[in-house]
Amino acid sequence: MAHDKLKQEVCRANKALVEAGLVVLTWGNVSGVDRASGVMAIKPSGVGYDDLIPKDIPLLSIKTGEIIEAGLQPSTDTPTHLLLYQEFESIGGVVHIHSTYATAWAQAEREIPCLGTTHADHFSGSVPLTRPLRPAEIQDDYECNTGRVIVERFAELGLNAADTPAVLVRHHGPFIWGENPQSAIENAIALEEVARMTAVTMQINSQALPCPEALLEKHFLRKHGSNAYYGQRSGGASSS
Amino acid sequence: MAHDKLKQEVCRANKALVEAGLVVLTWGNVSGVDRASGVMAIKPSGVGYDDLIPKDIPLLSIKTGEIIEAGLQPSTDTPTHLLLYQEFESIGGVVHIHSTYATAWAQAEREIPCLGTTHADHFSGSVPLTRPLRPAEIQDDYECNTGRVIVERFAELGLNAADTPAVLVRHHGPFIWGENPQSAIENAIALEEVARMTAVTMQINSQALPCPEALLEKHFLRKHGSNAYYGQRSGGASSS
Amino acid sequence: MAHDKLKQEVCRANKALVEAGLVVLTWGNVSGVDRASGVMAIKPSGVGYDDLIPKDIPLLSIKTGEIIEAGLQPSTDTPTHLLLYQEFESIGGVVHIHSTYATAWAQAEREIPCLGTTHADHFSGSVPLTRPLRPAEIQDDYECNTGRVIVERFAELGLNAADTPAVLVRHHGPFIWGENPQSAIENAIALEEVARMTAVTMQINSQALPCPEALLEKHFLRKHGSNAYYGQRSGGASSS
Amino acid sequence: MAHDKLKQEVCRANKALVEAGLVVLTWGNVSGVDRASGVMAIKPSGVGYDDLIPKDIPLLSIKTGEIIEAGLQPSTDTPTHLLLYQEFESIGGVVHIHSTYATAWAQAEREIPCLGTTHADHFSGSVPLTRPLRPAEIQDDYECNTGRVIVERFAELGLNAADTPAVLVRHHGPFIWGENPQSAIENAIALEEVARMTAVTMQINSQALPCPEALLEKHFLRKHGSNAYYGQRSGGASSS
Repeated sequence: MAHDKLKQEVCRANKALVEAGLVVLTWGNVSGVDRASGVMAIKPSGVGYDDLIPKDIPLLSIKTGEIIEAGLQPSTDTPTHLLLYQEFESIGGVVHIHSTYATAWAQAEREIPCLGTTHADHFSGSVPLTRPLRPAEIQDDYECNTGRVIVERFAELGLNAADTPAVLVRHHGPFIWGENPQSAIENAIALEEVARMTAVTMQINSQALPCPEALLEKHFLRKHGSNAYYGQRSGGASSS
Repeated sequence: MAHDKLKQEVCRANKALVEAGLVVLTWGNVSGVDRASGVMAIKPSGVGYDDLIPKDIPLLSIKTGEIIEAGLQPSTDTPTHLLLYQEFESIGGVVHIHSTYATAWAQAEREIPCLGTTHADHFSGSVPLTRPLRPAEIQDDYECNTGRVIVERFAELGLNAADTPAVLVRHHGPFIWGENPQSAIENAIALEEVARMTAVTMQINSQALPCPEALLEKHFLRKHGSNAYYGQRSGGASSS
Repeated sequence: MAHDKLKQEVCRANKALVEAGLVVLTWGNVSGVDRASGVMAIKPSGVGYDDLIPKDIPLLSIKTGEIIEAGLQPSTDTPTHLLLYQEFESIGGVVHIHSTYATAWAQAEREIPCLGTTHADHFSGSVPLTRPLRPAEIQDDYECNTGRVIVERFAELGLNAADTPAVLVRHHGPFIWGENPQSAIENAIALEEVARMTAVTMQINSQALPCPEALLEKHFLRKHGSNAYYGQRSGGASSS
Repeated sequence: MAHDKLKQEVCRANKALVEAGLVVLTWGNVSGVDRASGVMAIKPSGVGYDDLIPKDIPLLSIKTGEIIEAGLQPSTDTPTHLLLYQEFESIGGVVHIHSTYATAWAQAEREIPCLGTTHADHFSGSVPLTRPLRPAEIQDDYECNTGRVIVERFAELGLNAADTPAVLVRHHGPFIWGENPQSAIENAIALEEVARMTAVTMQINSQALPCPEALLEKHFLRKHGSNAYYGQRSGGASSS
């Protein structure tokens, strides 16, 4: 069956949650996919990060959610991850955590406004917040409905998953994604730090205003636009 | 006399307080019990965690509080631990700490409301707060009375110790418990993080509302109910 | 000349500031004394903690402030340390730091009220705040005048240095002391954590009330009174 | 071409950002100059600090901004660094970071007031804040205009770069400098800690007042004035 590389990548990304200080106990999980074969690998439920080894990582069909290769029991949040991969076709890795500051914004029932260039370097605008789940949506098919309200909110706001790689699930916490598990981890680090920095900003000035639109765009596009000039390009473009 | 395993377990759990960042100096203690023989092991008073070795851990009778096997002097908080074991029969480990955020809630004279699923994953509702001790209860038998107001508060609120494994002693700090010393430590980590996350939430939105009841129940029960589906079960239940 | 042990002790205590997270850069200094010979050893000025070795520690006369054995230049705060040793005869070690929370209280021009037992375990009441220095007291003999307003404030409030082993110098930061350099470090750790915990408490409840007097006394005395029962006594008293 | 020493120094200073906890991901860059040859060395864009080696550090002409010795692509912030070196002739190292607290002040659109001696030990007064960039200044030549508003603000306030070695760029974050890359790092550590301490002070007392002028001057001058007496001098001056 293989997919050894995917399992290793997902295993490593889960351990990276601890190194980045994004989890305590077993409060987070990372998944990754191989789009070509339609397979998702995800952290097993309730297993400590130190104990995690690639062979314990279960594989599931992205399309049907069926287990393709049994490791340990997959995370209880598996249906949310699956739905995100089904609906957001550009993404290759998903992180779910209960990190202090991003979770606090979700509990405060506030989206995270973009107050500066640190935020704009990573997210093309506010980090959105889902609507409350209805009691029936909580009772049945809860984890799948969690994915559905994320997709619903992105549709309402006309957001695309590539430019806004994170969401706050109300009263719950963040889901974050990226091109692969590693980039999802990087976006999770960025989200938590932005969530913290924004909370501190509002403590200093409770009337803090959003970052001007032109500056937001400049920073987002110099890193992510078609003429992006951040980082190392193949072909050696000019310096700035 | 033995109980070597219990002493090792309690010794290790006390050192885990430091690793988890829950104590400075000697600001915390962990105990554990062997219910079969009615014996409690507890940290000795004022000893540094680095210096702690199993043979220094004293053993006491849960029923009478008498020393069964002398190690060093037991923690000054010993009578509180004993009373909790006497009154809460399901518990096998107790932690007392002065961790920053949980202690701050105790000093603020506020119970910790359940604002989200992180809290609900560990505690079936608000983390309760004891009433003030009367001067006479402070003067005489102080540590035992501390245990009594905990038990009194649980009775008043109709709480059971298994579903609400922590309490805030007013103007003092938290006591936390679990099935054994290790699970008490895990609940202590959860409490401190929830205490912090709730404080940050209220800084972001001072009017933050409690987590809807249905969501609280869902999260508590998917982890702790009779149909819990979090973690690895023997017998290999279905994925989510 | 010797005093090798004192120099080693002071060297070690200065390095302990870093381990305890109480300083960045060179923002703190520790001194110690040998009362029998009337000698004070203190950190040299502006030297990094990693580079510090016992032979660089200068020795001064407590009485005259004259250098007895030249190491590197003593800390600019030397006259404050000297005055504290001259006036508070029970103390054997002094710490001065710019730790985040204690310094914030000093900058906020607020003494730290005793809101709970964590505070009462270490300080017999509020941590006091000095009056502002007058311009002339700043211009001339500044560091000595800093010591003088500390002593003045203790006299005004009828405090003794043994029961209240710390003070906040207004707009500046804390001085902390103890029986020896190591106990001064422990009191500094306690002060910083209490300063942080009190700030968090007041963020949760801006109307937080002081710890009831009976509880404050109980905790202070069970650790420091003549019938103290915290820690390990020679002679093996009963458990609680 | 040499400049090996400069490249090593800049490489080491960039890694020091991580050790000091001032950056996550690749959120910061340090440069240094050799004034004699008119050469600037700067971190390459988007490269992880762990992977950084001296030979990847590009060299540019301070005067023209042209690449003198190609390493990897220089930081996108290169034009800001260049302008600072061109305009502030006393400086030899520049740090740009998105550290939590200093960035929060920049996002809060507030300069950092001097509330105590910790601040005064490093900065001769408030840490200034630049005016908002106009949309046209953002669209074209953005990074160079960022440098221009810094210089403009220093001119308006009559500040000199040596006495005020940091600035907050509005909605963006801090730039910090020093005599060389290492001293710029030290000033960056001081700025972040001062930014945090000031935020905590204002949480404790929202009406906190500035440090009295005489005290600010005393502390700044005892460390930086012509009669400075902090640190170790050649020639062995008297103790305090």
